[in-house]
Amino acid sequence: MNKIKAGIIGGTGYTGVELLRLLLPHPNVDVSCITSRSEAGRAVSDLFPSLRGFTDLAFTEPQRGSFAECDVVFSATPNGIAMTHAQDLIDNGVRLIDLAADFRIQDIAVWEQFYGMQHACPQLVAEAVYGLPELNREEIKQARIVANPGCYPTATTLGFMPLVRAGWVDAGNLIADAKSGVTGAGRGAAVANLYSEVADSFKAYGVAGHRHQPEITQNLQALCSEAVSLTFVPHLTPMLRGIHATLYCDLNGEQSLDDVQALFEQAYQGEPFVDVLPAGSHPDTRSVKSSNYCRIAVQQAGGSGKLVVLSVIDNLVKGAAGQAMQNMNIMFGLEEKIGLQSPALVP
Amino acid sequence: MNKIKAGIIGGTGYTGVELLRLLLPHPNVDVSCITSRSEAGRAVSDLFPSLRGFTDLAFTEPQRGSFAECDVVFSATPNGIAMTHAQDLIDNGVRLIDLAADFRIQDIAVWEQFYGMQHACPQLVAEAVYGLPELNREEIKQARIVANPGCYPTATTLGFMPLVRAGWVDAGNLIADAKSGVTGAGRGAAVANLYSEVADSFKAYGVAGHRHQPEITQNLQALCSEAVSLTFVPHLTPMLRGIHATLYCDLNGEQSLDDVQALFEQAYQGEPFVDVLPAGSHPDTRSVKSSNYCRIAVQQAGGSGKLVVLSVIDNLVKGAAGQAMQNMNIMFGLEEKIGLQSPALVP
Amino acid sequence: MNKIKAGIIGGTGYTGVELLRLLLPHPNVDVSCITSRSEAGRAVSDLFPSLRGFTDLAFTEPQRGSFAECDVVFSATPNGIAMTHAQDLIDNGVRLIDLAADFRIQDIAVWEQFYGMQHACPQLVAEAVYGLPELNREEIKQARIVANPGCYPTATTLGFMPLVRAGWVDAGNLIADAKSGVTGAGRGAAVANLYSEVADSFKAYGVAGHRHQPEITQNLQALCSEAVSLTFVPHLTPMLRGIHATLYCDLNGEQSLDDVQALFEQAYQGEPFVDVLPAGSHPDTRSVKSSNYCRIAVQQAGGSGKLVVLSVIDNLVKGAAGQAMQNMNIMFGLEEKIGLQSPALVP
Amino acid sequence: MNKIKAGIIGGTGYTGVELLRLLLPHPNVDVSCITSRSEAGRAVSDLFPSLRGFTDLAFTEPQRGSFAECDVVFSATPNGIAMTHAQDLIDNGVRLIDLAADFRIQDIAVWEQFYGMQHACPQLVAEAVYGLPELNREEIKQARIVANPGCYPTATTLGFMPLVRAGWVDAGNLIADAKSGVTGAGRGAAVANLYSEVADSFKAYGVAGHRHQPEITQNLQALCSEAVSLTFVPHLTPMLRGIHATLYCDLNGEQSLDDVQALFEQAYQGEPFVDVLPAGSHPDTRSVKSSNYCRIAVQQAGGSGKLVVLSVIDNLVKGAAGQAMQNMNIMFGLEEKIGLQSPALVP
Repeated sequence: MNKIKAGIIGGTGYTGVELLRLLLPHPNVDVSCITSRSEAGRAVSDLFPSLRGFTDLAFTEPQRGSFAECDVVFSATPNGIAMTHAQDLIDNGVRLIDLAADFRIQDIAVWEQFYGMQHACPQLVAEAVYGLPELNREEIKQARIVANPGCYPTATTLGFMPLVRAGWVDAGNLIADAKSGVTGAGRGAAVANLYSEVADSFKAYGVAGHRHQPEITQNLQALCSEAVSLTFVPHLTPMLRGIHATLYCDLNGEQSLDDVQALFEQAYQGEPFVDVLPAGSHPDTRSVKSSNYCRIAVQQAGGSGKLVVLSVIDNLVKGAAGQAMQNMNIMFGLEEKIGLQSPALVP
Repeated sequence: MNKIKAGIIGGTGYTGVELLRLLLPHPNVDVSCITSRSEAGRAVSDLFPSLRGFTDLAFTEPQRGSFAECDVVFSATPNGIAMTHAQDLIDNGVRLIDLAADFRIQDIAVWEQFYGMQHACPQLVAEAVYGLPELNREEIKQARIVANPGCYPTATTLGFMPLVRAGWVDAGNLIADAKSGVTGAGRGAAVANLYSEVADSFKAYGVAGHRHQPEITQNLQALCSEAVSLTFVPHLTPMLRGIHATLYCDLNGEQSLDDVQALFEQAYQGEPFVDVLPAGSHPDTRSVKSSNYCRIAVQQAGGSGKLVVLSVIDNLVKGAAGQAMQNMNIMFGLEEKIGLQSPALVP
Repeated sequence: MNKIKAGIIGGTGYTGVELLRLLLPHPNVDVSCITSRSEAGRAVSDLFPSLRGFTDLAFTEPQRGSFAECDVVFSATPNGIAMTHAQDLIDNGVRLIDLAADFRIQDIAVWEQFYGMQHACPQLVAEAVYGLPELNREEIKQARIVANPGCYPTATTLGFMPLVRAGWVDAGNLIADAKSGVTGAGRGAAVANLYSEVADSFKAYGVAGHRHQPEITQNLQALCSEAVSLTFVPHLTPMLRGIHATLYCDLNGEQSLDDVQALFEQAYQGEPFVDVLPAGSHPDTRSVKSSNYCRIAVQQAGGSGKLVVLSVIDNLVKGAAGQAMQNMNIMFGLEEKIGLQSPALVP
Repeated sequence: MNKIKAGIIGGTGYTGVELLRLLLPHPNVDVSCITSRSEAGRAVSDLFPSLRGFTDLAFTEPQRGSFAECDVVFSATPNGIAMTHAQDLIDNGVRLIDLAADFRIQDIAVWEQFYGMQHACPQLVAEAVYGLPELNREEIKQARIVANPGCYPTATTLGFMPLVRAGWVDAGNLIADAKSGVTGAGRGAAVANLYSEVADSFKAYGVAGHRHQPEITQNLQALCSEAVSLTFVPHLTPMLRGIHATLYCDLNGEQSLDDVQALFEQAYQGEPFVDVLPAGSHPDTRSVKSSNYCRIAVQQAGGSGKLVVLSVIDNLVKGAAGQAMQNMNIMFGLEEKIGLQSPALVP
């Protein structure tokens, strides 16, 4: 088989370098083009010396036709860019995997409210497939546009999904207390993300409203008829990578923790990248660092007996570049795990 | 006025060195004795070079009568030690501030279950005063034994207290998702607390049962007639100091966020160490690092509208040594803030 | 005695907030004015919530006359600002302590080369006193302008000083391998200082030329007639605060390590903020964190027998704001240690 | 070709889990046995959840004959264990790669002095090959026993090697100021390596004598006739992985920095895992994190003009498990890079 020709729009951020880390050694992929307005002309391995010896690519100015030769393009830009390229790409037969949020929310009004801009191609949103393989594997195979899920939504949706789909919990009172490493904040020059601002400290942010709240709600609402109400509180954690979602919900029947465990094991049986730990486990984020796994454990809280689900991913892998490559593997009929088979880096 | 003669039992851990950091410069205190079985004979400033120039004390073997000359003794040992000294100390007119858990839980059976040992002096538990000044300032003044609160209980109790006391929330469904720095785990040699195990990772622990759950429940139950049910999930955060408690609860009436803000401001008006931030703030733990403050903000979650309270402390100061010294100031009729007036260390 | 009226130019960086942390509780100081072009109108405690409860000051627009009422002004701006205020201040009888580099280098040509700009008041450089109290305590008392030393120069100069002054080492072959925490890089929005760029990594920088190299050389050259040649290599360390200078030099005589130890103890006898550890010690930077101490140990390297000096400071305290306040205490005839008497924060 | 049957002695430390991370996905290797006295009977993936899904192995009690079926055994134990297994292994035709120090030092007296024990099989030391492929590739091919180099010695030897072999520097005055991440200290329960002791701090250790000093000296001495004198000062850095060696030496001729650059490029031409950066670069340790690369840059220090070499590796990969697997590839005639072709994990 010919190699897949892949392009990357805007590969200068952390999802960009992570895509390159994963795509460059992929045996069936040839990264043929990577664009960046700010770094055009610069060797990729000059910006990211970790890639010295792995690629001779240089960033190029994004232009109409840059990706005409590609089979697939990953957009690793800020929100609002991929939607300006989408029509052109699919008109040229190039499939698009957007790692930003442009195609994640089906309700355009909600999207425009949360992202503060007008959508450039609302007509394409409906056909875009939300790229959570555990939810939409079949649709992804044929998709022309894949909306790669957000990091928090990946960890949270996978943690709530079996319960909501089974109708076992009160969907009207879901709580996700989520913690993210700092790479989730991107590579932009911002005082708030300086080492000296973030290290040795911890805080919540966006309590009154965060863009991932409607995305998760959309995912869960599609699984049940009851109205979903989700309280979502993200926190910034002094670590590089990792999301830890602590999920709280109330069982609406007499199900035991064993029942819940069985439900999760069944739900994710055969899933290559979701690992259900024994009930009562406490997964740490490092157990998935650098890998595409989501590890999940169910718990019953001492005292109250409330059901608690713990779900961890690496925000840059299963929460971004790894899941994007998993989607690519699915879209092109490859074995889904190719290039994603390394164990996590511990410590 | 004569200086207060203070002794420390077991000062080789992090609460011990923090007590010394705070007590040594205190203008009204003379630290006259510090015991340690393992370090007897060693200069304190040899174990903790940060104290070079501040003290000539050496650790001594703990013995009957070690503290006979003292006015007050701080016990900074593991759980189960202070209770073996208490009767002897108060018989000698020495007041005791226990930074461990021996006198925190009034229900002896619950204590023995959670701490896995028989209580050595159950008769003294009833008279011990729970040393949260915002709750028991008057009783602390006369106390012979002060049970210095746990770190999680301090942050969580202060965050829920106004709401539970006012009867504004459903006390039967409280959730505390709490995150702690690693110093909370103590200075014992344990693989789980190695830098290489903890850094750049995040995890929950003790979900099925943690000793601070009954302590917090006891605190809140004393404030209301409704049965309190608390879900408490602690997490280990890769930072040295700090607790961030994210508290979830449901208002049982039509109160607005402004009402809640006013309730908190009124509740803590005049409190020297509780700072109510403007509603909608996101306090970070570094804003209290090294200081005795608790900073609290109330929030209404986007989407669900659920009430969220954010409460931060430094686990070694307001969560341990600082609060102990605050209690000492109260017990000996000193101005409550003496020795605790430095701003937080940022960054 | 009336309180000293102190002003701060540009207090929005890390040296600014550190100055406030130290000055606000100082019993003899009243911080009466703080300017910032970018934050004018904003409450200081809004930018730095750690200062809530300690000050009602707001940042003001810098203007001619802003500091007319002040006795002393600390300039905590980037390089090149203080020199534009200096003449005006001293004409108004206001003494200036510049925490940046404008007055540190006596050779204007060298300064202009390393700082890449023209000096605005070369005529004032000669009268400025280099504010290292261990070197220039007497001159500081009368100084109108104090050039507060750089962080690396403080740790390095104190580590080499006794040896160079005594003429015991080959001044023509000094090596300082220095490591700094990230706060030394300032609070500007720069990709290079993001948490995600700096955490869990280590690197050298500025090997081919760093501004502190001529400053240290100037300090040491003043102590000996032999030509000083210094190799200075700074490194960025994933920690908030602290400088660790590892100094290498060759004894030019038969001096033993005991002799060197005695030399250091004698040199710093009576110095309130320099602590000579027993020979063979390994000071860690946390032993001075948040404090104004410099701790020094001398060593003889295994194998080669080369003399090694280890010198640690907190870059924001003895390396910046603390030393500035020490200088102020000296300038105004106060006890030198006032406000600087807290032990280091460990851990 | 049949897969190589590999065994691991003592795989419960960080080099053990790193070996597993690398060996388990290796296409030509079957890890068939892993022993541990303390964890016998426990599933490997229970101790290291990062390996869930990658292996069903359990730790077994080490016994005579445990490894009889193996082609190669990696010893990842503390020093002094491998030497008790070596004779038995090679008698059974099993080749041994020791990641500890038992076979690194040819001078038995020096080894016994630095490691504080009697050597169990001095007769085998002479035949053991020091497993630095850049130095001994040919000998490694046939070796029955490979002494896998220490982490500091790998970074330091590769940084000095071209200069010392060419005779361009004064070998009698070499300085290596080396900084290591905390994983280098192992996974033993020790207070000194707790997060709360190590985080946000920096220190030197072992200045008066460190075991890697004679190892590096032996490596360099073999390359030149002049007597090598090395000053080696290691430092503990608050990061998980990485060694940064800053090397100082004096050119003994008129060579320019360009000459030195050319010397390094020629020396490492064709080396799959040594990357010579452009002169004047500042490699950071993260550029090799998780990878088997050593990146090196040469510099000329500002002011003094002294030659400075910067050399970085991941201490657990090129400094331990990765190099061990590289040696295995060489010993078994495999392509040297197999299993080591992933770019570094950044960030």
